[in-house]
Amino acid sequence: MLARTPAPPYWAVVFSNQRTAADAAGYGVTAEHMVALAADQPGFLGAESARGADGFGITVSYWQNEADIAAWRAHAAHQLAIAAGFDRWYRCFATRVAYVGRDHLWDKPQADAPGQG
Amino acid sequence: MLARTPAPPYWAVVFSNQRTAADAAGYGVTAEHMVALAADQPGFLGAESARGADGFGITVSYWQNEADIAAWRAHAAHQLAIAAGFDRWYRCFATRVAYVGRDHLWDKPQADAPGQG
Repeated sequence: MLARTPAPPYWAVVFSNQRTAADAAGYGVTAEHMVALAADQPGFLGAESARGADGFGITVSYWQNEADIAAWRAHAAHQLAIAAGFDRWYRCFATRVAYVGRDHLWDKPQADAPGQG
Repeated sequence: MLARTPAPPYWAVVFSNQRTAADAAGYGVTAEHMVALAADQPGFLGAESARGADGFGITVSYWQNEADIAAWRAHAAHQLAIAAGFDRWYRCFATRVAYVGRDHLWDKPQADAPGQG
């Protein structure tokens, strides 16, 4: 689902990763928990996630500023998840911290929207 | 697959989108063509892409500078693809242009790598 972020500027963390075949259940539970926990952190603006059948996934989380990103990274529960990621969940990953200067969100107009004719 | 980008800084375009059910074949052919064509453009540093079974996808392309992004956006073949995206491929999307100031790439050490003991 698209993150309905506010007007730029804001920050993004692009987390691209290749899953191992290990521990699908444990990974699923923790991933869901991390999304819910991140949403409760100061400065969180939204997140988007996709993973293909080949196990390659991208999660992008959006934040008000860089300090929010550092605080979330240091969160104790997140640190445990990161350690498990190194230990068994990921074959490789990239984390990129980026400043979003402009964006464009687009929704397809509804042909049958009320008041459109 | 992870994009093996050079050391920051560089730029990223995060394209998040929800596919319609329409024209899977046409979309597939064009998407593949666009990836190959983008890779030939000046300043292209790599791209990553994932789409789940729900039709939500994220493609991140990496570029040396902002002018490279503008040139690729203006490319005639890309413009045709963008128009088809509005017309039939996407229910909604977001494009975000971001400056990547730092990154971290990690590969799981191979337990059986030569010279590891």
